[in-house]
Amino acid sequence: MKKIVIDVMGSDGKPKEIIKGVLDALKENNNINVILVGKEEEINKTLKNENYDKSRVYIKSATEIVDACDNPTRVLKEKKDSSMVVGLNLIKNGDGECFISCGNTGALMAGATLIVGRIKGIKRPGFGALIPNKKGYYLLLDCGANLDPKPEYLKQYGILGSIYIEEMLNIKNPSVKLVNIGEEKSKGTNVIKEAYELLENTPINFQGNIEARDIPFGDADVVICDAFTGNVILKLTEGFAKSLFEMLREEFMKKSIYKIGALLSKPVFNNLKKKMDYKEHGGAPMLGLKSLVVKSHGNSDARAIKGAVLQCQTFIDKDITNKIIKKIEES
Amino acid sequence: MKKIVIDVMGSDGKPKEIIKGVLDALKENNNINVILVGKEEEINKTLKNENYDKSRVYIKSATEIVDACDNPTRVLKEKKDSSMVVGLNLIKNGDGECFISCGNTGALMAGATLIVGRIKGIKRPGFGALIPNKKGYYLLLDCGANLDPKPEYLKQYGILGSIYIEEMLNIKNPSVKLVNIGEEKSKGTNVIKEAYELLENTPINFQGNIEARDIPFGDADVVICDAFTGNVILKLTEGFAKSLFEMLREEFMKKSIYKIGALLSKPVFNNLKKKMDYKEHGGAPMLGLKSLVVKSHGNSDARAIKGAVLQCQTFIDKDITNKIIKKIEES
Repeated sequence: MKKIVIDVMGSDGKPKEIIKGVLDALKENNNINVILVGKEEEINKTLKNENYDKSRVYIKSATEIVDACDNPTRVLKEKKDSSMVVGLNLIKNGDGECFISCGNTGALMAGATLIVGRIKGIKRPGFGALIPNKKGYYLLLDCGANLDPKPEYLKQYGILGSIYIEEMLNIKNPSVKLVNIGEEKSKGTNVIKEAYELLENTPINFQGNIEARDIPFGDADVVICDAFTGNVILKLTEGFAKSLFEMLREEFMKKSIYKIGALLSKPVFNNLKKKMDYKEHGGAPMLGLKSLVVKSHGNSDARAIKGAVLQCQTFIDKDITNKIIKKIEES
Repeated sequence: MKKIVIDVMGSDGKPKEIIKGVLDALKENNNINVILVGKEEEINKTLKNENYDKSRVYIKSATEIVDACDNPTRVLKEKKDSSMVVGLNLIKNGDGECFISCGNTGALMAGATLIVGRIKGIKRPGFGALIPNKKGYYLLLDCGANLDPKPEYLKQYGILGSIYIEEMLNIKNPSVKLVNIGEEKSKGTNVIKEAYELLENTPINFQGNIEARDIPFGDADVVICDAFTGNVILKLTEGFAKSLFEMLREEFMKKSIYKIGALLSKPVFNNLKKKMDYKEHGGAPMLGLKSLVVKSHGNSDARAIKGAVLQCQTFIDKDITNKIIKKIEES
């Protein structure tokens, strides 16, 4: 019985919303078993008022919390009894299969790499994010691990992303593209030009470069880039959607007749907002590790956490780690 | 009498739309004088049917056209009689003050740097772009010149952008921010951290890092980054706006009642589209050269060209080149 481990303390030490999300996931999928890691007293206080299947929920005590401002490399030495470090060790020792945390990204990345460890042959793990586009979702990789990747890392992101998206979103032979300033093979930095060559020689469905303007239209299922570019794409998409909806609302408020128009077409905006909602999937998978580690937003609500837990269960059910190991050995 | 030089051949050799834009600008501002560079016969054919002030329009013959696929470095040697090279030489020789081209970006950049030349003290010129945000417009710099800038270049972009936006958009003491993966000074690559330090010690209103999610809200008047990141921000903004309007349209078409709602609130969408329209300003200024060079989109319509010509006239009227020279000497 494989368990999903959840750091319930996040970065603000308030486990209520996170636990709510976990329990929602348990209700939706009967195969899920979880270990909640954090301050036992607080976990029990939250669970006391909830109705859930007790046989599927374990608690592991951890007395410390990793703060948002903690130095990532020091956390592993100085906060050994933090919910993050205790959780990662449960994964390492085989007590759990996947790990979810809303805490300090840098610390999680360092901890995941050093405690859980990389799959043999993987140079650097990468952070992925499922982002909405016109057709549905695409995986953006890397969004946070390597600001200055070598061409070989980008090649491996292509392989990791391709497997992940094929299994998680059931897209057969997903298209993989590399972010660049032009579609031509000759464009971009030397790192990108070399990565292009390497990606061409993998067994995945690599379709060349993608310019940023084509990303929102869904021209690729997996979009590969360095973590700086990935951060910009992820956050600009988020900020742009939010600002555009605000601008729309302001325009609609200008005249009564517009307000009536808005009322009549309210579902249009609700549907679009739902389509643009990145919280549905609940977290960024860190790919290339011996187990799946998911980084959820610091301000995740219950729905985001539920999404992350369901994502982990699919990852377990489909045995994705072993599929990655096999593909990396072949490449 | 200072003249604006326009490469009317663009990259497709069809001068009609470009000339139309120039004549529209002449009608709007009586101070404008232009030199149209390109195939004389074609220019005359287009002008024949137009009504305009002939005393303000000069023609300079150029028999060749720079193609979109021409090798930038070869153009200067092999296409000396192209509209682009002839136009740049007019600027160099003082026959004209500003130069506008819709042609090959790489060739224009190489030509501008080698023929027109940099202002003394400027390490590398940068491409700026005026992009719509929730508050109006911001200048994104660099969008196309240096994929791999040194910290010193980024610092100079801050100064160049600050002067440009203050004069062109009449924003007193404009805020300048540096694109980064976090707001903290300690974040990002070494190049960005060093650029941060340098920017702090300039006389401009540098306000630190900006995360991509805050860019669309107008948190900075000038946004500084390397050309790779700039290209991604520029194109993602363009593609995202386009895709979102398409998604909205599709949603509205689903039911008759939504269509009625859309009809009632039509001005809402027209206003928003107008706000998001980057063509208004008509081109990306290349800053740091002895004269202003403006790169307009390859598919510019008359309105975009008109915007570019008006932009150049403001640049001339406000004597921006000399203001840049002064500020660079001080920094």
